[in-house]
Amino acid sequence: MGFADRLHQRIRVTDSRVCLGIDPRPETSPLTDPAGLDHDRQRVADAVADAYEAVLRETHRYLACCKPQAAFFEALGLEGLSALARLMAVARELDLPIILDAKRGDIGSTAEAYARAYLTDGALAADALTVNPYPGLDTLEPFLQAAQAGERGVFVLVKTSNPGSADLQDLLVRGGLTVHEVLAERLAARAQDLPAGGSGYTALGAVVGATHPEALNALRRRLPRSVLLVPGVGAQGAGPEDVAGAFDAGGLGAVVNASRSLFDVEATSLEALASHAADAVQRLQRGINDALNARG
Amino acid sequence: MGFADRLHQRIRVTDSRVCLGIDPRPETSPLTDPAGLDHDRQRVADAVADAYEAVLRETHRYLACCKPQAAFFEALGLEGLSALARLMAVARELDLPIILDAKRGDIGSTAEAYARAYLTDGALAADALTVNPYPGLDTLEPFLQAAQAGERGVFVLVKTSNPGSADLQDLLVRGGLTVHEVLAERLAARAQDLPAGGSGYTALGAVVGATHPEALNALRRRLPRSVLLVPGVGAQGAGPEDVAGAFDAGGLGAVVNASRSLFDVEATSLEALASHAADAVQRLQRGINDALNARG
Repeated sequence: MGFADRLHQRIRVTDSRVCLGIDPRPETSPLTDPAGLDHDRQRVADAVADAYEAVLRETHRYLACCKPQAAFFEALGLEGLSALARLMAVARELDLPIILDAKRGDIGSTAEAYARAYLTDGALAADALTVNPYPGLDTLEPFLQAAQAGERGVFVLVKTSNPGSADLQDLLVRGGLTVHEVLAERLAARAQDLPAGGSGYTALGAVVGATHPEALNALRRRLPRSVLLVPGVGAQGAGPEDVAGAFDAGGLGAVVNASRSLFDVEATSLEALASHAADAVQRLQRGINDALNARG
Repeated sequence: MGFADRLHQRIRVTDSRVCLGIDPRPETSPLTDPAGLDHDRQRVADAVADAYEAVLRETHRYLACCKPQAAFFEALGLEGLSALARLMAVARELDLPIILDAKRGDIGSTAEAYARAYLTDGALAADALTVNPYPGLDTLEPFLQAAQAGERGVFVLVKTSNPGSADLQDLLVRGGLTVHEVLAERLAARAQDLPAGGSGYTALGAVVGATHPEALNALRRRLPRSVLLVPGVGAQGAGPEDVAGAFDAGGLGAVVNASRSLFDVEATSLEALASHAADAVQRLQRGINDALNARG
């Protein structure tokens, strides 16, 4: 079964459209002591993996998927990447789809190497990978081919959630579209040639920030065969009501990521942290579902 | 001393503008046997590190810098990243500046995490990092700040060497510039506010493919305070004569990367491989210098 179908099956079973962002910031984690541990990467990496393993085991029933952010693990060096491998193994054990947020992108055989790293097998293989399209549409092909071959997915950055996303993405191109709209049209054309499973969606997804509700609505229409991965809810300021436009008429076709806002607590134990995260995930789950129901 | 000055000091001492691309492709390496080793990542990673260590020790006298391509190490998993750390340690021992070609890019605190991973300290810390600007100019700031603080450098993707580079980078924006030209103008404005050392160049560099000689000329003028990193010579079809336009009137301000073309040999020993690479590096070194002299 292709990635989009697997993801939708899970959305139906859990009634959740929430993606748990795994962004281990040692400096803000309740389970590390920056003063004491900051210079011991192995201990920080172990603490991070312990914390998120507890959270995954407590929250997975309320999740559509999880999204480890590669940067925070890479910041902990080789020890951090081992912690990432450990958490990915936990997610696999829980049958929780993994979108690795690594925003890779490069040309030719280099893109093939990244696809081999994250969309085939091995300790860091994910169900889907985020990729950066700036090098060009040809550079997405190795990722799409690996995704097709392995029933995995690709999420192409289209419109990011940060203030500076307008700098290049919103430049107005001759013809009247913005750069990110031109990109979306090209991606939609490419998705026409990719098989869609029972869900109606292909392996070619898109990343669109929740902080731009209008773009979210427009891109939902422009990309009818692409699952949208929507970051920006919570700490970045968007709420569940901002993301309703990411979903199709049946309330499907998107997942909403939250990271920091789920861990906004001074927990003193793994149990307290995991329990708080489970409450926060369920609040977001209900918030999104309520916003979809209110849309009618 | 800032990165640009250190790089220029080395260019003067070695009289070389060559950047050695470290792109370990196990499937084409003369020292691995795909049939036998492909599934043993540790053995492939060790073979790759052995081969490139021998090459670095034989060629460093003729090099301005080296550029490990992260993708090929990531494709070998955690064992590959250990091999990357080992090769980076060798380059540091040889005083050879390291540009880590990882094309990272993300928003806010995630960009900070990538900057911490590769532009501070630790086994994978480089002298400079390639970054992808699609998320926006604000997302370059954490990299620039880390670079400034640590006397390191950043190379922003402006115009890549692949055929599809036109898809987004050459879209014509209202006003008559292309997307990559708009980006270059923004980068040039940013570089105005960054300190330039004795070389006249700042920590903010740019990646421009050798396969677009006209763009290379134009971007040299648009980015007077940015060192250009120029890939695409050799296997991708460009020759030394195509890159002369990347250099300023004094023959400085750029380094030219070659990877595959330096290893186009069926070597049966580390010594033969390293000796062949040293010859190929020196041919490219002379080719570039001759092209600059011919320019007058």
